[in-house]
Amino acid sequence: MHVTILGGAGFLGRKLAERIAAEGNLAGRAISAMTLLDQVRATPPRAAFPVTVIEAGLDNFETLRTAMPEGTGVVFHLAAVVSAQAEADFHLGMRVNIEGTRNVLAAAAALKAPPRLVFTSSVATYSGGQDAVITDATRQVPANSYGAQKIIGELMVHDHTRKGFVDGISLRLPTIVVRPGRPNRAASSFASSILREPFLGEEAALPVPEDFALFIASPRSAVGWLLHAAGLATGAVGLDRSINPPGIRATTGEMLAALVAAGGDRGRVKRVDDKEIFDVVSPWPAKFDTARARALGFAPQPPLNEIIGAFLEDDLAATRALRTAGS
Amino acid sequence: MHVTILGGAGFLGRKLAERIAAEGNLAGRAISAMTLLDQVRATPPRAAFPVTVIEAGLDNFETLRTAMPEGTGVVFHLAAVVSAQAEADFHLGMRVNIEGTRNVLAAAAALKAPPRLVFTSSVATYSGGQDAVITDATRQVPANSYGAQKIIGELMVHDHTRKGFVDGISLRLPTIVVRPGRPNRAASSFASSILREPFLGEEAALPVPEDFALFIASPRSAVGWLLHAAGLATGAVGLDRSINPPGIRATTGEMLAALVAAGGDRGRVKRVDDKEIFDVVSPWPAKFDTARARALGFAPQPPLNEIIGAFLEDDLAATRALRTAGS
Repeated sequence: MHVTILGGAGFLGRKLAERIAAEGNLAGRAISAMTLLDQVRATPPRAAFPVTVIEAGLDNFETLRTAMPEGTGVVFHLAAVVSAQAEADFHLGMRVNIEGTRNVLAAAAALKAPPRLVFTSSVATYSGGQDAVITDATRQVPANSYGAQKIIGELMVHDHTRKGFVDGISLRLPTIVVRPGRPNRAASSFASSILREPFLGEEAALPVPEDFALFIASPRSAVGWLLHAAGLATGAVGLDRSINPPGIRATTGEMLAALVAAGGDRGRVKRVDDKEIFDVVSPWPAKFDTARARALGFAPQPPLNEIIGAFLEDDLAATRALRTAGS
Repeated sequence: MHVTILGGAGFLGRKLAERIAAEGNLAGRAISAMTLLDQVRATPPRAAFPVTVIEAGLDNFETLRTAMPEGTGVVFHLAAVVSAQAEADFHLGMRVNIEGTRNVLAAAAALKAPPRLVFTSSVATYSGGQDAVITDATRQVPANSYGAQKIIGELMVHDHTRKGFVDGISLRLPTIVVRPGRPNRAASSFASSILREPFLGEEAALPVPEDFALFIASPRSAVGWLLHAAGLATGAVGLDRSINPPGIRATTGEMLAALVAAGGDRGRVKRVDDKEIFDVVSPWPAKFDTARARALGFAPQPPLNEIIGAFLEDDLAATRALRTAGS
């Protein structure tokens, strides 16, 4: 089976590609080939099967067709304009997150056999803030353009699935902590910075109070959920194809305490107000009841020390090398 | 102020245009001109102000700009591919209901002063069927493409409003009964046929059991809600710009009893199974708690006898003339 990762140069796409390459199979089927598409050139993982890298966005249907040749059994659609960027450039977000996702679905629907399509949505699709408790039945009222565009993506995945054009699953990922590499334009980027930068001897800004909670998960958990979604028996999922995976709630104060417990220097983290960031993240809820995901076999995120441990084991060395190279 | 009705040749668009022309003002402001856009040529109402008719779809941004000149204070966006048609022709529904609505919002957002934009969504955005109770907080899980596309439209209106590009309100209209004229490709068209055709001496097919309930409203109520939405002080509406107006629940058996009470011949209505129609309408809920709309001043739909009375007073003669003309 061919597997395609759209957004294959992003930090999750890279980790996912490496994990699939290491395992050699996915959803119980052997991988014959992989395509990584991203507007930035993706680095192919070492693999026992051929890996094609396509440097392109989501705007061209034919390019997306090429990225999903006949025999594609699973498509991971992780490509997106992220939250702060979609808020700053409305039209770019609309074009990539809505039109682009529509093109992805059209290309996937053109395959003879409807592929499993795993789409990453986000907790940013919700509002209600710190006191809200989100269940599988909660109405999504987005307070940012990224969230609105991700719900629209979910609805397109949902309806293409209902029509039998693809077999889709949308995962509303928690804030992923610790992101390796550099800060990015996700509004939640600070949540990684405060746990990453101190280990690199750098300073990090905290734009929210220490009692501000986020719903978070490690890249390891996220990759595990993506793989689980790829192999999930969707008969049990029913009409509603969007799932809230079981992340954990943590305040930034708890995250900083875990930083200290892991040997990080809390003194590197400075509280700095940032209205633009705060306005995007403050409506995001942090309390989730993820009963449906657990019943569907999505593994719960372990406690905070695993999140920092995963970073130290998986990503610290590579991130340090990246910084030293000065690239 | 200029007012624009997109879908101005549809039965609601026509009634809305006539009502605005008769009143001469809208949302407390005098009307200086009106534009009716539809892919079918709209009939301009008799009015004290100029009425421009544009025969076009929603695919061309420049045409939509022309339909909304500077000074446009209110845009009614009623144009859509309806439920059974969107289910039969997926791509047409996507193009008109999603791309078209995006073009409408872009054209409205290009105005110097953000206009009030009133968008018609639908009860078809919900599923859950006969036992579901829909509140303002209920998650929309659509069971048909029209519903999915209408939620996407709501989300685009919502986010364009949050960004300040337009001042939008989405009304999730109940099934409108009695539609004048001919049966159309809305899956709910039968609900009008069973109350209209007997008065014209014609037969009507009932594709659902008599204990099947619908959430309904008269065209009079719908036009009243559209006008109320046009003038609503949106400060009280908040982030969530979608509203369920207060229709009424009625079984088809109750509708037929009201037909008889109004002097209609129930013998003209034959029970005929239609799987295509039933599959679209059976997930639609009929029980609504419309507390928010009532608090915002949307007038409750009166009982069934008003619905039939409104048809007999407003539309029977014109519908009969249309049929006699054989057009």
